Amino acid sequence: MAFRPLHDRVLVRRVEEDTKTAGGIIIPDTAKEKPQQGEVVAVGTGTRGENGDVTPLDVREGDRILFGKWSGTEVKLDGEDLLIMKESDILGIVA
Amino acid sequence: MAFRPLHDRVLVRRVEEDTKTAGGIIIPDTAKEKPQQGEVVAVGTGTRGENGDVTPLDVREGDRILFGKWSGTEVKLDGEDLLIMKESDILGIVA
Amino acid sequence: MAFRPLHDRVLVRRVEEDTKTAGGIIIPDTAKEKPQQGEVVAVGTGTRGENGDVTPLDVREGDRILFGKWSGTEVKLDGEDLLIMKESDILGIVA
Amino acid sequence: MAFRPLHDRVLVRRVEEDTKTAGGIIIPDTAKEKPQQGEVVAVGTGTRGENGDVTPLDVREGDRILFGKWSGTEVKLDGEDLLIMKESDILGIVA
Amino acid sequence: MAFRPLHDRVLVRRVEEDTKTAGGIIIPDTAKEKPQQGEVVAVGTGTRGENGDVTPLDVREGDRILFGKWSGTEVKLDGEDLLIMKESDILGIVA
Amino acid sequence: MAFRPLHDRVLVRRVEEDTKTAGGIIIPDTAKEKPQQGEVVAVGTGTRGENGDVTPLDVREGDRILFGKWSGTEVKLDGEDLLIMKESDILGIVA
Amino acid sequence: MAFRPLHDRVLVRRVEEDTKTAGGIIIPDTAKEKPQQGEVVAVGTGTRGENGDVTPLDVREGDRILFGKWSGTEVKLDGEDLLIMKESDILGIVA
Repeated sequence: MAFRPLHDRVLVRRVEEDTKTAGGIIIPDTAKEKPQQGEVVAVGTGTRGENGDVTPLDVREGDRILFGKWSGTEVKLDGEDLLIMKESDILGIVA
Repeated sequence: MAFRPLHDRVLVRRVEEDTKTAGGIIIPDTAKEKPQQGEVVAVGTGTRGENGDVTPLDVREGDRILFGKWSGTEVKLDGEDLLIMKESDILGIVA
Repeated sequence: MAFRPLHDRVLVRRVEEDTKTAGGIIIPDTAKEKPQQGEVVAVGTGTRGENGDVTPLDVREGDRILFGKWSGTEVKLDGEDLLIMKESDILGIVA
Repeated sequence: MAFRPLHDRVLVRRVEEDTKTAGGIIIPDTAKEKPQQGEVVAVGTGTRGENGDVTPLDVREGDRILFGKWSGTEVKLDGEDLLIMKESDILGIVA
Repeated sequence: MAFRPLHDRVLVRRVEEDTKTAGGIIIPDTAKEKPQQGEVVAVGTGTRGENGDVTPLDVREGDRILFGKWSGTEVKLDGEDLLIMKESDILGIVA
Repeated sequence: MAFRPLHDRVLVRRVEEDTKTAGGIIIPDTAKEKPQQGEVVAVGTGTRGENGDVTPLDVREGDRILFGKWSGTEVKLDGEDLLIMKESDILGIVA
Repeated sequence: MAFRPLHDRVLVRRVEEDTKTAGGIIIPDTAKEKPQQGEVVAVGTGTRGENGDVTPLDVREGDRILFGKWSGTEVKLDGEDLLIMKESDILGIVA
């Protein structure tokens, strides 16, 4: 079942942080308010300016992202727990 | 009796989440602050910019939507309990 | 005595919700925070943009409207209790 | 002594509500938060936009107005108690 | 020593309200939150718009003004107690 | 070591108020919330408008200024205690 | 692993303040709310205006900066503790 986020919202699947320490891996540290990793599942059409112009979002489907621990609203789609958040909650893209 | 929401408001009928688990079905989970499902009954003319320009809404009559649990104001029209909310309360459209 | 609301304000007469249940009738439910019904008596010249442009209001004299329970300021004109509210307090128009 | 309100401010003389009930008369009701009546004594040059443009006010000297009970700042000019308020505190004009 | 207020600020000398009651004189009433009288000593270059344009202030050096009791910051220049406030704190000009 | 403040920030060195009372001297009065004197050491490139345009600041290196007592963030550069503040914290320029 | 901050965010590596007192060195003073030093590791594409235009950031990769003590969100990338902050948290650039 497809879900199209509205405007500047993004649908995100949480990605459990791997524990291996080989190069390029983030070590989980749930104790502190560590940002969370996730993968972008779907993106809204974009941010709407005051005059109605739409600016596409910077993040794309498939991007691996970091977002603040408490960002987004939990939703269950097709039995899977996902998150809906605003693009402004996203800190950056993990290449 | 027709009801025309004003500006960027939307009239919504709550949709009880089906419990079957066949593909494409959302499993109810009222315990948490789960977003609610609904169907768009009527839409306002659009968002008004500072200079008066009107930008049509992205949601249409008949769209199936997800919205935050506490969004909107309850109203009874023709004996039916409905909700009036702003488009900005809508998280996205369930295709 | 005529009263001209200023800018984006609207003068409204409360309409007691009919109790009959024939088609098109709203059943009163004062217990909950139900929106109230009213009739537009007079409208202001419109909303003023930052640059001074005036955008006429969407509601007209005679429109039957729904508004939030706590909206507006009570005023007595010619012995009649009326309400002055902003257009943004109005949820929509009951055709 | 002349007093020129600045920008979008208005100088107002309170008008005691008449108690007669003949047509067109407002019955005083100080118990509730009833709006007050007043007469415009002087008006500022107008509202200043972000870019410096000035938009003249809608109210004129001599207009009879309704304003919120707690609006404005009291001032005594030539021994007379008057009020200085912003145009946005004025609900409307009593023709 | 000259002091040039920045942007939309104004340097003001408090004016003690005269107690005589001849025409045009304000009777002191320190009990209530009465606006204060003052004289403009120096004005800033003006208000800066979002795009950097500067709009000159409406008040001039030498104007006699009314301002809210708690407005401004006290400063001592050349041994004299003066006030620095924003133009938006000024209610109007006493001609 | 040079320090370049970012955007609309200013680097300021506190100036102890002289106690002599000859013409043009400010008498120290640390008791009250008196504004402080300082000298501008470095200025940022300017204020950035919504559309990215940069507007140069009004204060210059070497200007003697008055600023609110609690303005700015303390920083130690080359062993010297200085302040970094926004231009909007500056009340005016002491010529 | 590369990390691309989003929009106006910046990835920063804390720089421990050297204790030597030779010219050009900042003496650590963790007691007070002293600003912290850091080095810019990566910068976002820029600030997005209301109409979608992007304005590049003023700070560059490799810049040595001062930022407020409590700025930013801690993140661990490739086992290294780094900070993600907004450009507006940066006080200035230490040349």
